[in-house]
Amino acid sequence: MITFLTDFGTADPYVGIMKGVVFSVNPSAVIIDITHEIMPQDIAGAAFCIYSAYPYFPSGTIHVVVVDPGVGSHRSILLVSMAGHFFLAPDNGVLSLILKSGKVDSITSLENERYFLKPVSQTFHGRDIFAPVAGHLSKGLQPDQLGPEIKPNQAVFLNLPMPYLSAGSREIVGGVIRVDRFGNLITNINQQFIDKAFGGAEKRQLKISVEGHQITGVSDCYQDVSPLSLVALVGSMGFIEISANCGNASEFCGASKGSMVSISVVEAA
Amino acid sequence: MITFLTDFGTADPYVGIMKGVVFSVNPSAVIIDITHEIMPQDIAGAAFCIYSAYPYFPSGTIHVVVVDPGVGSHRSILLVSMAGHFFLAPDNGVLSLILKSGKVDSITSLENERYFLKPVSQTFHGRDIFAPVAGHLSKGLQPDQLGPEIKPNQAVFLNLPMPYLSAGSREIVGGVIRVDRFGNLITNINQQFIDKAFGGAEKRQLKISVEGHQITGVSDCYQDVSPLSLVALVGSMGFIEISANCGNASEFCGASKGSMVSISVVEAA
Amino acid sequence: MITFLTDFGTADPYVGIMKGVVFSVNPSAVIIDITHEIMPQDIAGAAFCIYSAYPYFPSGTIHVVVVDPGVGSHRSILLVSMAGHFFLAPDNGVLSLILKSGKVDSITSLENERYFLKPVSQTFHGRDIFAPVAGHLSKGLQPDQLGPEIKPNQAVFLNLPMPYLSAGSREIVGGVIRVDRFGNLITNINQQFIDKAFGGAEKRQLKISVEGHQITGVSDCYQDVSPLSLVALVGSMGFIEISANCGNASEFCGASKGSMVSISVVEAA
Repeated sequence: MITFLTDFGTADPYVGIMKGVVFSVNPSAVIIDITHEIMPQDIAGAAFCIYSAYPYFPSGTIHVVVVDPGVGSHRSILLVSMAGHFFLAPDNGVLSLILKSGKVDSITSLENERYFLKPVSQTFHGRDIFAPVAGHLSKGLQPDQLGPEIKPNQAVFLNLPMPYLSAGSREIVGGVIRVDRFGNLITNINQQFIDKAFGGAEKRQLKISVEGHQITGVSDCYQDVSPLSLVALVGSMGFIEISANCGNASEFCGASKGSMVSISVVEAA
Repeated sequence: MITFLTDFGTADPYVGIMKGVVFSVNPSAVIIDITHEIMPQDIAGAAFCIYSAYPYFPSGTIHVVVVDPGVGSHRSILLVSMAGHFFLAPDNGVLSLILKSGKVDSITSLENERYFLKPVSQTFHGRDIFAPVAGHLSKGLQPDQLGPEIKPNQAVFLNLPMPYLSAGSREIVGGVIRVDRFGNLITNINQQFIDKAFGGAEKRQLKISVEGHQITGVSDCYQDVSPLSLVALVGSMGFIEISANCGNASEFCGASKGSMVSISVVEAA
Repeated sequence: MITFLTDFGTADPYVGIMKGVVFSVNPSAVIIDITHEIMPQDIAGAAFCIYSAYPYFPSGTIHVVVVDPGVGSHRSILLVSMAGHFFLAPDNGVLSLILKSGKVDSITSLENERYFLKPVSQTFHGRDIFAPVAGHLSKGLQPDQLGPEIKPNQAVFLNLPMPYLSAGSREIVGGVIRVDRFGNLITNINQQFIDKAFGGAEKRQLKISVEGHQITGVSDCYQDVSPLSLVALVGSMGFIEISANCGNASEFCGASKGSMVSISVVEAA
């Protein structure tokens, strides 16, 4: 099984062509689209996306991530083996969260051109390198056939926006890393970070702020508040999300990707 | 075979994740997307869509419909068996047209949590309930293993906009229920309704009105009228559609979802 | 293997329904979407798209192209066999580039209605004709079972925008035929045309002009210029493309589909 995650969109034939190349190599391949609507060249967005999605695929899946503003330059291409999954991506930080997971088994630098489509274009490595190599991997090709192993510290890492605890430890400061189709504001603050910062605090004691709006308490579901009211909850990826019950929190709050989100503890009265 | 119909869009990884869960349960599953671009939380739109699409899939297909503003609340989830097809959806009316078809064999209320992904999140039952249950059904799991059977009158029904005959029986009053990508106005008035209302009338005697525009006669194809002119015909789903030959009827008429459409009979001169 | 290329979009259930029909005929079919976002009724756009994409699919693939403003009229439907590929499309010019390739083995006019879905609607031949016929072809049905063979000069050809050499042979005049998601301007001028026009000229001697912007030299990759600068290169389809390194050339230049592009030779100083 192979997944595709790109910023190619679906209006151009690029994704279809990549699939044609995979099937030309392995007619029995199964290809799943995670999404092709990563904002053009948004490496950080793709890094969060693949990290959120991969655990739900079967062991042995080959994840192909092509968000690649450096295509045609001297950037490397990596094949990362982790916990039974394979990740094939440019060495530009898009696998930062995978590489930092502490579960990486090996990292291969793709140097053997034997499995590439020739001639290799300078603008579409998705077609000429990523797709055919994924096809061969899905037929059993071993990573060590593709190039030398490198150490994690040789890979490119991204400075991803991470939450921090303010001076005095009274406030968690994080941000919105994605707005989904429903207008839900997905933050980079997860439950573990809150537990570590505010050990004993109960969910109903937390105060969440975004763009001047305050929410008291982390709820269990959207219906804990009345329709069109704001609600904070632990989203399906384990991060704090801010939603509007039956509405669009992004429009309601005027918040978007990059908006600051803070969490503090309200003392019991 | 499994179909997916949701309001998740394709920019977020939600649909890809659901597919990963299905394949983790049944690596041989075949999944077809009907659409993921139902307007967020448009239960009525999804109800018409699944009812229009399901007959074209093979017997035994499992149709997964996730338009679910009540996710995480106490709404039930239903598995409906009808004419060899299975429908898995929240009990919020999205299956109203299926349930009213008179061909339902059984309705199961999903209560057995054995096949759910644990822990079940409060915001993404598509991943945690619908996908894994669909995966198990595709491997042969029987509905009676999932929960008790309920009666049709225990399910939630939607008040879908239906056409009616005006006082005096001189006019059918219906509406536009969908505008497609080409700007075609798809109404809720089908041929049978017209036959019942205006028994002997010929197609060329019918007068169709929408937003102040009049069309005389129901045509056989777009080319019955000159380019950019309005034409009414019986669309591919059996409903009256208003189109502009080589143009966009929605823009031409200023009509959209919810616009009133009336049909009357012009007496022969 | 079957590919789909349409202007149906993905918000309506049309594409899903076509897939249901194929699988009803051949449950083992593999269907790949090239794109469904051809602009409504843009036959020329679809002609370039299928011509760019088909070579990357395995021999034996059946390519179904449904951009069909004449649906329901007396236009024919063609099945073209070329270099091991099959193309099923309305006879409206959408296969012009395929037919002009000089590699066509046979052209069949679809007249045998035996494999159609009955009754055939007047507005959705994708469902009623193209999908079921593709399904049967994927099971081994031979073209000669579908209708009589016709000669290439009996098919409809499109006047596609082609580049030309100006009077005096000093300038190639072409145009932008597509703007992709990244804002890359894809022209209709390929390397062979340049070689033929300006025999001995080196890549760095070429001057490319679009909407008042000048680029000197055809580069090897985006990174040959500084970020946000314009660069011209031979794109992945073999045509000259104008891009902005890490930016959007279409927005940068104010250029879009149809913009004129010219190429001339700068004399060495």
